[in-house]
Amino acid sequence: MSKGFNIAIVGATGAVGVEMMETLEKRNFPVKNLRLLASARSVGKIMKFKGENIKVEELRADSFQGIEIGLFSAGASRSKEFAPFAVKAGTVVVDNSSAFRMDDDVPLVVPEVNPEDIKKHKGIIANPNCSTIIMLVPVFPLHKVKGLKRLIASTYQAASGAGAQAMEELKIQSRDILEGRIPQISVLPQQIGFNLFPHIDVFLENDFTKEEMKMLFESMKIMHHPSLKVNCTCVRVPVLRAHSESLLLEFEQDITPEEAKAILSKAPGVTLVDDIKNKKYPMPIDASGKYNILAGRIRQDISRDDKKGLTMFISGDQLLKGAALNAVQIAELL
Amino acid sequence: MSKGFNIAIVGATGAVGVEMMETLEKRNFPVKNLRLLASARSVGKIMKFKGENIKVEELRADSFQGIEIGLFSAGASRSKEFAPFAVKAGTVVVDNSSAFRMDDDVPLVVPEVNPEDIKKHKGIIANPNCSTIIMLVPVFPLHKVKGLKRLIASTYQAASGAGAQAMEELKIQSRDILEGRIPQISVLPQQIGFNLFPHIDVFLENDFTKEEMKMLFESMKIMHHPSLKVNCTCVRVPVLRAHSESLLLEFEQDITPEEAKAILSKAPGVTLVDDIKNKKYPMPIDASGKYNILAGRIRQDISRDDKKGLTMFISGDQLLKGAALNAVQIAELL
Repeated sequence: MSKGFNIAIVGATGAVGVEMMETLEKRNFPVKNLRLLASARSVGKIMKFKGENIKVEELRADSFQGIEIGLFSAGASRSKEFAPFAVKAGTVVVDNSSAFRMDDDVPLVVPEVNPEDIKKHKGIIANPNCSTIIMLVPVFPLHKVKGLKRLIASTYQAASGAGAQAMEELKIQSRDILEGRIPQISVLPQQIGFNLFPHIDVFLENDFTKEEMKMLFESMKIMHHPSLKVNCTCVRVPVLRAHSESLLLEFEQDITPEEAKAILSKAPGVTLVDDIKNKKYPMPIDASGKYNILAGRIRQDISRDDKKGLTMFISGDQLLKGAALNAVQIAELL
Repeated sequence: MSKGFNIAIVGATGAVGVEMMETLEKRNFPVKNLRLLASARSVGKIMKFKGENIKVEELRADSFQGIEIGLFSAGASRSKEFAPFAVKAGTVVVDNSSAFRMDDDVPLVVPEVNPEDIKKHKGIIANPNCSTIIMLVPVFPLHKVKGLKRLIASTYQAASGAGAQAMEELKIQSRDILEGRIPQISVLPQQIGFNLFPHIDVFLENDFTKEEMKMLFESMKIMHHPSLKVNCTCVRVPVLRAHSESLLLEFEQDITPEEAKAILSKAPGVTLVDDIKNKKYPMPIDASGKYNILAGRIRQDISRDDKKGLTMFISGDQLLKGAALNAVQIAELL
């Protein structure tokens, strides 16, 4: 650790925090010093970064002296409390929570979509919601060419989206059910072992969940597309760490599956997996551990008489591109 | 077993066959004699019906003498081979396979939708595909009042849809993964333990699967609605026996969520489960073992400027209403 930046990871022991550290190492990010911050509960824990042992310190108002980039992933309330201290200390905050995403003076960035927005930051850059990132990486290149008007999404979201404890809960409940015990619910709102439920984040006035509305509002902001229409249903499924989404897209212009495949085969951050003869299509187990979003099952929307509709299926690692990788990519652009 | 009908179950030892027998018993169907037919492999197996032991017999061309109703659930090729022998013997066949569903002289029946079609049968009545039945029970009452034009569906289909062996494969793979072993794939086309995949039935010329196209063609036939538009993506998920579906509906007339809830709260075969404040919405574990289809998360489609769009989430037991119950209901109408 010589040349490079002084980095802090806030929420270092969480599911996303761990992936942030690993992503910094794997992508050879120029780190001079790495500070691992977490709640009092995790203080003193030792984590390995590039072969060195780093002790987890307590997150405090004065934790950010000399820190140039702070990667936050400790929930919205901690971000709201501690990001201002970091900004005051001169740290640029890349925040993975929902705390600042819709603030006018906070850029909301997917590096493959709107990297130029980073320049406008005033100390904080927000990392979008995982389902939104995973959706926009393959959707934006199609929008650029054909003009997206409307998007219908149904998600298949992994336990990891609710943190490391939810992943553990999925495993424990699955084992309990297989062994004839009654599964206990503690982290997620419903049983997740061999079950699924259309309830992610809180319910809002219009009976949509906050997660479902993020897919609309965040997409509008990231793509600078105020007239975009999105209808979404978000569903938690018994999968560990990759989200999938079934999408129906409506464009200004005609688009064929062949055109879409040609666009996506060259799109940054996308791997086209659409070879049905050989049973190749996006699946969570194949997306897990991968940086790219897998896109496939690309077909013409057969519920329309014209050629302006497309339907496809995508999978992406929720912890990587959905969170840690996107944050590190933002840090790389800084 | 005195008054009543002579019934045969073909494929009696399969996941659906077992449920057919239990449904006959639970609904007190007037059975005089019950013959259980299966492939040579299962011959001699003993099954209990109303406290009596019945020996499984081999399915043969001459198995149908004296049988008035034959409930078939042994796959399309067995139905094609043996249903003609049954019809010749005077048996009315209720066939759960896809063998005859689209034949012009075979009624395709969901008793809550088109019971009158049964009268037109010429010996064979087809039971629709499970995902289609589960979708149409709540969709048809809305269509009757508001005129359905277009339907976008993404499914979350349980392992049971591929039979008892697929359910077992889900359990075995889940246990293997939890215990650190590499899961073995034998029944389903991909790993199902902690995974999901957009591949049910075979792929067709237009890159949709046969399962996805059934949702269109069978819906048109059952609802007598030749201009209906359907776009569907069918996904297998690691759930044991209830299918869920995320639906977007477009109607001729305006419809509000309140109107839809009022219609569905009185619809036959539907249980409205839409109380988000108390975390009540359709889920596979709640639909399992139930006769009714659960419908909830009913919202206005916010990707439209008018009030002609609705979105909702449904769950239904694949083995019961998706198969065995629907077949027994058809037999009851006979």
